[in-house]
Amino acid sequence: MSGNATSATVLGLGAMGSALAGALLTAGRPVTVWNRSADKTKPLVGRGATAAGSAAEAVAASELVIVCLLDDASVREVLKTVSLAGRTVVNLTNGTPRQARELAEWVTEQGAKFLDGGIMAIPPMIGQPGAFVFYSGPKDVFDTHRAAFDTFGGSNYVGEDPGLAALHDLALLSGMYGQFIGVLQAYALIRSEGLSAVEFAPLLGGWLTAMSNFVQEAAVEADSGDYTRNVVSNLGMQAAAFENLPIAAADQGVSSELLAPLHQLLLRRAADGHGAENLTSVIELLKK
Amino acid sequence: MSGNATSATVLGLGAMGSALAGALLTAGRPVTVWNRSADKTKPLVGRGATAAGSAAEAVAASELVIVCLLDDASVREVLKTVSLAGRTVVNLTNGTPRQARELAEWVTEQGAKFLDGGIMAIPPMIGQPGAFVFYSGPKDVFDTHRAAFDTFGGSNYVGEDPGLAALHDLALLSGMYGQFIGVLQAYALIRSEGLSAVEFAPLLGGWLTAMSNFVQEAAVEADSGDYTRNVVSNLGMQAAAFENLPIAAADQGVSSELLAPLHQLLLRRAADGHGAENLTSVIELLKK
Repeated sequence: MSGNATSATVLGLGAMGSALAGALLTAGRPVTVWNRSADKTKPLVGRGATAAGSAAEAVAASELVIVCLLDDASVREVLKTVSLAGRTVVNLTNGTPRQARELAEWVTEQGAKFLDGGIMAIPPMIGQPGAFVFYSGPKDVFDTHRAAFDTFGGSNYVGEDPGLAALHDLALLSGMYGQFIGVLQAYALIRSEGLSAVEFAPLLGGWLTAMSNFVQEAAVEADSGDYTRNVVSNLGMQAAAFENLPIAAADQGVSSELLAPLHQLLLRRAADGHGAENLTSVIELLKK
Repeated sequence: MSGNATSATVLGLGAMGSALAGALLTAGRPVTVWNRSADKTKPLVGRGATAAGSAAEAVAASELVIVCLLDDASVREVLKTVSLAGRTVVNLTNGTPRQARELAEWVTEQGAKFLDGGIMAIPPMIGQPGAFVFYSGPKDVFDTHRAAFDTFGGSNYVGEDPGLAALHDLALLSGMYGQFIGVLQAYALIRSEGLSAVEFAPLLGGWLTAMSNFVQEAAVEADSGDYTRNVVSNLGMQAAAFENLPIAAADQGVSSELLAPLHQLLLRRAADGHGAENLTSVIELLKK
């Protein structure tokens, strides 16, 4: 990055905030950092960052302000103490769509521009291949600062509504946690016979890959609301066969609590007369 | 397959039993079929199978007897009416490890050999690439009939204990249902804003692939019981951050019941003093 790279301020130097500041430094950008406990600034100052004595001083130093704190309450608390007029606040703190929308409104009222982001990476991945961040808010604000954002990893703009970055983030995390549920339950069963999970892992990995066409098929059905096309193993059959999972788990001394809610939704949906549909139709029961 | 291919009997001609009999016919084997409602035999007779007038007659026709009925109770009911002495019974009916073990004992008492199997395919996949079947029971019995089994798809022998095929089957199904849980929850969130699940699907698919290293990492930890190595995003942090999922889901009018049990296990495990460990350690709470 050349000498005309714009400067940036990073508020919050936990593992993730430090990684973000580090990526900006690596790209040759002037970086001002602030953290409630000042000792967290030291490694970054050693790499060329400027430590600010207060959040207000840090925000005064750069037009672009990256915020990565513990939670939404911390963000509110810190931003209340500073003057935001003329700044662009990019909130990369974990949060919900509603928090992002409410923060966007408040930040904009202070005369600043606002983007919310959802980081799809753990700190060591920042700036490495595979890391990416969702952004939502005004497109022109995203475009203006995209070069800085690209130092973190892939930049994925998902819309003007500031809540959409968190929504995308939480949707992907939900997908991940579901995958974790399945893997944990599989290994609990395998380990109940003292078998090797490591030996079983290639089978499980191959099977999950083989079953991953569900991602595309379910998407088409979720969009259309039509769960009646190309039904092979229908929901009613699956609801009935699913019974073997808790029975076998109990026999093996393993809890089946992680899969129990899906079983209940399958049984409810079948009882509601949708037994001939594809499994995806249980998504209708997730709408409150 | 040449004329010396051994004959086989298939009991039960639901979609799966019919597919199994069809695969044997395609391989040029003499096949005798039986089903409680005789009309199911017609398409197979049209392809060269012999329809038996009773289960006893069908079992008398071949040394190799493939059983694919509704459930374990149906298997018991049908096999009680026949003479099994000298036969090899291969049970491909869905069931649990305990059912397989108990059936193995009873069948062996009748003077027959026994293998249990778990089919990892839907009926249209039988005989096609990607389909495979787990087998457990005496290895020599598996080896004797492997050529016939290979007509169904890949044959995966998993051990002498007859319960192991069903255990492997249920472990993979658990993995699959977990993946389904994640995908359904992700789309419920995305659809709550009227966004396109089809447009979101490539992001989700890519993300699940990126997160699939959990399959290998968790296996090593499940085997060793050591959840303290290479901890980056520890269980306590994840338990705390997880809170955003139910809050955001509720804000969006979406139920988070599918992920709730994992959240509870994370909170319990953190409260038990394991917050600094990897997420995999919740597997300890699945042991009853």
